[in-house]
Amino acid sequence: MSHPHPELGPPPPLPENGLRIVALGGLGEIGRNMAVFEYDGRLLVVDCGVLFPEPDQPGVDLILPDFDYIRGRLDDIEALVLTHAHEDHIGAVPYLLRERRDIPLVGSRLTLGLIESKLNEHRIQPVKVEVIEGERRSFGPFECEFVSVNHSIPDALAVAVRTPAGLVLHTGDFKMDQLPLDGRLTDLGAFARLGGEGVDLLMSDSTNSEVPGFVTSEREIAPVIDGVFRGASKRIIVASFASHIHRVQQIMDAAEKHGRKVALIGRSMVRNMGVARELGYLKVPAGLLVDSREIEEWPPEDVVLICTGSQGEPMAALSRMANRDHPIRIAEGDTVLLASSLVPGNETAVSKVINGLNRWGARVIHKGNARVHVSGHAAAGELLYVLNLTKPSNFMPVHGEWRHLRAHAQLAELTGVPRENIVIAEDGVVVDLVDGQARITGAVPCGYVFVDGTSVGDITDVALKDRRILGDEGFISIVVVVDSTTGKLTGGPEITARGSGIDPDAFDAVVPQIEAALQEVAASGVADEMQIRRTIRRTVGRWVSDTYRRRPMIIPVVVEV
Amino acid sequence: MSHPHPELGPPPPLPENGLRIVALGGLGEIGRNMAVFEYDGRLLVVDCGVLFPEPDQPGVDLILPDFDYIRGRLDDIEALVLTHAHEDHIGAVPYLLRERRDIPLVGSRLTLGLIESKLNEHRIQPVKVEVIEGERRSFGPFECEFVSVNHSIPDALAVAVRTPAGLVLHTGDFKMDQLPLDGRLTDLGAFARLGGEGVDLLMSDSTNSEVPGFVTSEREIAPVIDGVFRGASKRIIVASFASHIHRVQQIMDAAEKHGRKVALIGRSMVRNMGVARELGYLKVPAGLLVDSREIEEWPPEDVVLICTGSQGEPMAALSRMANRDHPIRIAEGDTVLLASSLVPGNETAVSKVINGLNRWGARVIHKGNARVHVSGHAAAGELLYVLNLTKPSNFMPVHGEWRHLRAHAQLAELTGVPRENIVIAEDGVVVDLVDGQARITGAVPCGYVFVDGTSVGDITDVALKDRRILGDEGFISIVVVVDSTTGKLTGGPEITARGSGIDPDAFDAVVPQIEAALQEVAASGVADEMQIRRTIRRTVGRWVSDTYRRRPMIIPVVVEV
Repeated sequence: MSHPHPELGPPPPLPENGLRIVALGGLGEIGRNMAVFEYDGRLLVVDCGVLFPEPDQPGVDLILPDFDYIRGRLDDIEALVLTHAHEDHIGAVPYLLRERRDIPLVGSRLTLGLIESKLNEHRIQPVKVEVIEGERRSFGPFECEFVSVNHSIPDALAVAVRTPAGLVLHTGDFKMDQLPLDGRLTDLGAFARLGGEGVDLLMSDSTNSEVPGFVTSEREIAPVIDGVFRGASKRIIVASFASHIHRVQQIMDAAEKHGRKVALIGRSMVRNMGVARELGYLKVPAGLLVDSREIEEWPPEDVVLICTGSQGEPMAALSRMANRDHPIRIAEGDTVLLASSLVPGNETAVSKVINGLNRWGARVIHKGNARVHVSGHAAAGELLYVLNLTKPSNFMPVHGEWRHLRAHAQLAELTGVPRENIVIAEDGVVVDLVDGQARITGAVPCGYVFVDGTSVGDITDVALKDRRILGDEGFISIVVVVDSTTGKLTGGPEITARGSGIDPDAFDAVVPQIEAALQEVAASGVADEMQIRRTIRRTVGRWVSDTYRRRPMIIPVVVEV
Repeated sequence: MSHPHPELGPPPPLPENGLRIVALGGLGEIGRNMAVFEYDGRLLVVDCGVLFPEPDQPGVDLILPDFDYIRGRLDDIEALVLTHAHEDHIGAVPYLLRERRDIPLVGSRLTLGLIESKLNEHRIQPVKVEVIEGERRSFGPFECEFVSVNHSIPDALAVAVRTPAGLVLHTGDFKMDQLPLDGRLTDLGAFARLGGEGVDLLMSDSTNSEVPGFVTSEREIAPVIDGVFRGASKRIIVASFASHIHRVQQIMDAAEKHGRKVALIGRSMVRNMGVARELGYLKVPAGLLVDSREIEEWPPEDVVLICTGSQGEPMAALSRMANRDHPIRIAEGDTVLLASSLVPGNETAVSKVINGLNRWGARVIHKGNARVHVSGHAAAGELLYVLNLTKPSNFMPVHGEWRHLRAHAQLAELTGVPRENIVIAEDGVVVDLVDGQARITGAVPCGYVFVDGTSVGDITDVALKDRRILGDEGFISIVVVVDSTTGKLTGGPEITARGSGIDPDAFDAVVPQIEAALQEVAASGVADEMQIRRTIRRTVGRWVSDTYRRRPMIIPVVVEV
């Protein structure tokens, strides 16, 4: 099994008959999926998504793939294939198109419809290439064949990429619901046919590789939803991903059956369901929808609200309802249905929302107490089918954290993929497929690119480290004024602190220590600004540590007058 | 069902025949359990634990119950009953004893043994009253009867408190393992007898009230552990709570069977197992233990390490191994067993550890992929038994977040406790049991008390809010120097920023704006310090928001010379 290695250097030049694959995101994390294929100097990109930040990345809105590797070669990109329209696959497209507007976006009708409406909000009109399952289409040296897969958003595609170096099958995200609501199955026949032809490299979705067995059909949720509706005496509020068209369809069907009106809440929910309805992926019964602003005019037992916020996002409608910070006021007897999976890292935030809703008297139904959601990703039992049908010569698990990649690699080994042909790569690791063998040949720099407010990439790891220290310990700033001609101290020390938890009066104790230390420095004749700052930092740092056992950030400021 | 209400005021005086119960922690949260019983001016305290902080309480080490309610009445405390020796029940005892050293600590032999060794580290020699299941003992007006319960630490007790106001049964933490490793069952016979006598109020553990069914017996873990040992070819590393004596016993038994030596790693693990062994709760086979410093001298296939860090605590041994920041270096083929439950809020941290261990080649076995742990708390099916056996007139769910308290209240209602006799209380809410009826009669102030470094209670909500802003957005500090006689600006503005993500050179753009704004203020003749600060804050705040869409903390500093 190949492993990335901290000492991996830049890769050698790619042999003429070789295919190079570099993931700029999605390996070692769930999110910001992006894989760059290179053959004969030309590039094909598969997906371009965002990653949502974790608690140790404070104040960050989004994390993008690192475009550095392709930035100098944007004109070599033949196409950007989008496997489906989830944010972790399309969310960074606006940022990539800012760098080159006319990269052709290749995807299914729904995928392109959703990305287009998103790009329009960024005032970008994309170049679109609509494809359908079964279709073959070449982009430069890359012959792509699209294969129907089933996922938690309709119209998802896997892509088989043929070059003279071999056939690579990239599954995208998929599951294998055998009774999907729209009847669109993951095309195992196509997988088998490709296996017969000879898959040189399989890149397959690892999200649920640790989960044994099989994912329940979406269809089995309907009776549960029906039961929730039957048992609800007041308002029903459903939180779901803004892209889960089938789930919204199920809620709408249940609402119609039980004689309730539906209001959609949240910009992304309204936008996506508008696109889905227009393109025929969502059937809205006549007269069902009401404007969310009119919802208070209906009796509670006659309405259903569908909103975002199922991941505990603090600014979303659901969190604000839980905190009584929303026009919709949760009341005793309301029913809240969290119809979504729990994205790892959000457990605490979601639990907080559930507690808040409970506090105001709502009955909260979630995946912990009812089968109200099924995963969108194939579990281990299903991943084995794909491995056995495609019989890949080489295997590279994608779309997962380390634990998922490794578990998927083990499944591949069990199905007979030779250990030496299994490649576990991280973001930035270079995998070359040459003469039928996939190998790690090097690594390129690949960091996190943080979006914060309007800026992209300004927030560095240094700034984040500063934020972590500031967030944990606060800071103490010490200002002194120095006469620029005499070098003498003429003002201060003036001490300001925030978040340190130290009583401001307590600083009186350290002022004489600072003054004494600075006098000593002045007497030694080396009182330049750097020396003054160092002396202040050391004096105050030692005092705080000895007195409080804390380590706030200490910021000396020297002003010359 | 009684509910706390934001407008609850101070309670009326307690009627002569009434019993008052105020939880100073543990209601609306899992942690810092502490309940104060009052009868005839005397107090009995049950448990005194700590709560571990959440991500939105940055830099906090521990959270204590708020002792304010009893601080003026410490001499009225007859005894502190400790139901068992988990941190969320005993962790705050050292802090309470700092305020009054001779409060008698009442508990079982193991509970007192473990708290004593902890107190000795704080140089406190406690007053101990050892009790055993079945025993009745009076503390002032409180006649306490202790009942054996089964939990994830041996020797846990429930306590029935009799006063002329009635009989209150407080279960403490419990489960109902019918085949416990030490044969010590939860005494349902005693619960039934108390039910026959008449339980006026039941206070029962709500942790798993949302979990349907029954908890698996500890005994069923043994074959799983055995399988792990059989399948391990290199080192085995087990992470467990430092108090889970039965789990450690099982690991030691497996190690002996498979011919491996055991090393204990971590101060609390070594301390607690020392106490448990000395008191006869842990049987260590002769020659099994080796010093952790010698562990590298043994072949990997001959050792087991037992360490803490199962909750992903960043400073614990396991996290440091995952980050290659520990003398024990994880290698391909090592097996790591996370033999513990996942405390809510720690999911992300634990997942990070699992990923890190995977990255270095370890096989990680955890509750997500094997039955290596069972909960220590009774699930809904078992809670129903307790409700049916004790047939309480009044019910008050304890030990839980809102969701758990409410789910437990619903179980009580299902077993026939009248709705109006079910009391859902929060920390600080006053519950009076008068004439056989439990009612919420008011609330007392009850906040979080934060321990940070050596200080208790210095960190306020304001400091935490500052830390959150600093952690999310950083700060910009602007220093100006003003001549105290003329009021004229003689130095600055000098700008310092940290964590803002703004390039320092960018501040050149705002300096002229500050200068212009300050000149305008000076010209208007109202240039006092407050006005200068306000002007700077407004000017810089607007510039940052317009330019970057961010809201760092803005800190103007005026130094007079």
